[in-house]
Amino acid sequence: METVRIDLGERSYPILIAQDLLEQGATWQHLPKAAAALIVTNDVVAPLYLEKLRRTLSLRYAQVHAVVLPDGEAHKDWQTLNLIFDGLLAHGCDRKTVLFALGGGVIGDMTGFAAASYMRGVPFVQVPTTLLSQVDSSVGGKTAINHPLGKNMIGAFYQPQLVVCDLATLDTLPARELSAGLAEVIKYGPIADMQFFSWLEQNVDALRRRDRAALAHAVKRSVEIKAWVVGQDEKEAGLRAVLNFGHTFGHAMEAGMGYGHWLHGEGVAAGMVMAAELSRRLGLVDEAFAARLRMLIERAGLPVRGAVIDANDNAGRYLELMRVDKKSEAGEIRFVLIDGPGKAVVRAAPDALVREVIDACCA
Amino acid sequence: METVRIDLGERSYPILIAQDLLEQGATWQHLPKAAAALIVTNDVVAPLYLEKLRRTLSLRYAQVHAVVLPDGEAHKDWQTLNLIFDGLLAHGCDRKTVLFALGGGVIGDMTGFAAASYMRGVPFVQVPTTLLSQVDSSVGGKTAINHPLGKNMIGAFYQPQLVVCDLATLDTLPARELSAGLAEVIKYGPIADMQFFSWLEQNVDALRRRDRAALAHAVKRSVEIKAWVVGQDEKEAGLRAVLNFGHTFGHAMEAGMGYGHWLHGEGVAAGMVMAAELSRRLGLVDEAFAARLRMLIERAGLPVRGAVIDANDNAGRYLELMRVDKKSEAGEIRFVLIDGPGKAVVRAAPDALVREVIDACCA
Repeated sequence: METVRIDLGERSYPILIAQDLLEQGATWQHLPKAAAALIVTNDVVAPLYLEKLRRTLSLRYAQVHAVVLPDGEAHKDWQTLNLIFDGLLAHGCDRKTVLFALGGGVIGDMTGFAAASYMRGVPFVQVPTTLLSQVDSSVGGKTAINHPLGKNMIGAFYQPQLVVCDLATLDTLPARELSAGLAEVIKYGPIADMQFFSWLEQNVDALRRRDRAALAHAVKRSVEIKAWVVGQDEKEAGLRAVLNFGHTFGHAMEAGMGYGHWLHGEGVAAGMVMAAELSRRLGLVDEAFAARLRMLIERAGLPVRGAVIDANDNAGRYLELMRVDKKSEAGEIRFVLIDGPGKAVVRAAPDALVREVIDACCA
Repeated sequence: METVRIDLGERSYPILIAQDLLEQGATWQHLPKAAAALIVTNDVVAPLYLEKLRRTLSLRYAQVHAVVLPDGEAHKDWQTLNLIFDGLLAHGCDRKTVLFALGGGVIGDMTGFAAASYMRGVPFVQVPTTLLSQVDSSVGGKTAINHPLGKNMIGAFYQPQLVVCDLATLDTLPARELSAGLAEVIKYGPIADMQFFSWLEQNVDALRRRDRAALAHAVKRSVEIKAWVVGQDEKEAGLRAVLNFGHTFGHAMEAGMGYGHWLHGEGVAAGMVMAAELSRRLGLVDEAFAARLRMLIERAGLPVRGAVIDANDNAGRYLELMRVDKKSEAGEIRFVLIDGPGKAVVRAAPDALVREVIDACCA
């Protein structure tokens, strides 16, 4: 088993990475004691892993309740979040109840925000079952729901007690979602580690074949980079924003098309191509780098062209949506750009240049 | 001007207490710089103070927006909270926007939770305009909304940057709300300071007449006690729970009758009588103390008998509602009791005895 520690003083916690962690009692041995646990999952993951997790948690908690939400980004909203609160209150769950997020990024984000808010905060555990949530969203304590006017606009920084990445759960992941997860894996290369990027170029086919050793390395290295960044800047005062490489364009696509049309990782993939192109036009990287990134994204089974989100004024709509991005300040959009391979920078760019990039990169 | 500091390390902040603070530019001089401010208030307070606050904030912020919510505890819910998020996003408010809560406890609780959650946290300022919010709810960083199954069930611990208690705003407070505020003032006596309690016995009539010097002292001493308690135990791991004296019974009344029938302070008033009676029956205080507390509460214009919330099984309904109180653990209700005048203790009590108290104290 690999263990990566995220170092945040009294809010520190371990991330466990291995096969078959779900069913091992030892996985849960250091969690706080409580009368009850509540598992939050969705209707796709529940038939696969809910009973397995419930069985192993029953050894530790007298009561193990479950709330099964509808699947998908389109449900990451108030109405669905309230189903978690309804479940907690219906079962009389107290302030010590431990919540378990069993699923992908949507389940993790919603369960985390519910844990942050229920009785002003109860402990929670991330049990990510998708590649994307294992390598990115389950680590670092960002929780949120969407608002019709912007993604992840309502949420909290709230750290879990533990993150359990059971690599066996990736066996049941649809190929499209595996690829979407690879987008967030690839992201770590340009912003932090070009050696890892080279390794990915050599191993992308093995990853898509779900080679276990390759997946274990990809998850571990991704989580190490993320843990290091979050340890420097928990609440995104500065550095942490680099983890949003590709996300400014990506979020605009997700919001512009309506949540759920593209997977989050697909928006990030095309968004990275666009952010690399913007970096190139600003003279920060050369075409060879941009082409190399585009190629790897394509080999991962991901879109390399941005979505057209408005037939009449596509660039205008992108700009409008990107202005409500959380990194914006006083109406100025701030992009995560690549300032030479392996190093990210957060800065503004002229609207006219951004428009050119959008026009050039959207199909 | 009186200044009380709340000492929470990097989350410390001052509470300013004086006449006419709203309109003085100096009140706001240390707040963080931002492009925009957003004032949240309600339809009762807006006609009285919104323009005054907007004018003074316009000297500091280029844009000052406002969201006016419907008044009352009955609106302390998701739907109304969302009106704040809608306003923030409609105005393109960024992560540096400062929120101002202009109103009573409901406005403060909701604005605080909105500030805690918008883009995972923006700065906010409490500008309490009721006695209750000046002496209690605006200080200490508890924010929340209600759930149909329990009061303040969804929220966050999130500290403001500044609390501004403008005593002049109490001039327009309806007499019933002034009395409701006195309930939270009286509370500080039995749990922490019997000298203050004696002072209240001598000054309760002056307070009801809105004598300015008396109000200034009552607000200052209440805030001092609260600041001291919160400084010891920000997140209510222990000591802070004593501030909930009278609230366990009170919350049950509020939820049982439907939010808005009684004011929060009225529920707390009758709840303190009931908690004192429970303390007496457990041998912790004598009848003379219980009578003294009852008398002061009555002189403050507050109910001394609990509400009947279920004609068939009143005690049963109280117990059912109190079991979902945030202090409960594993289904056991924990009461704030008086363990000798001036000292509070949090403990369980036998259901049968609690039933007797409810039967004896409800009209």
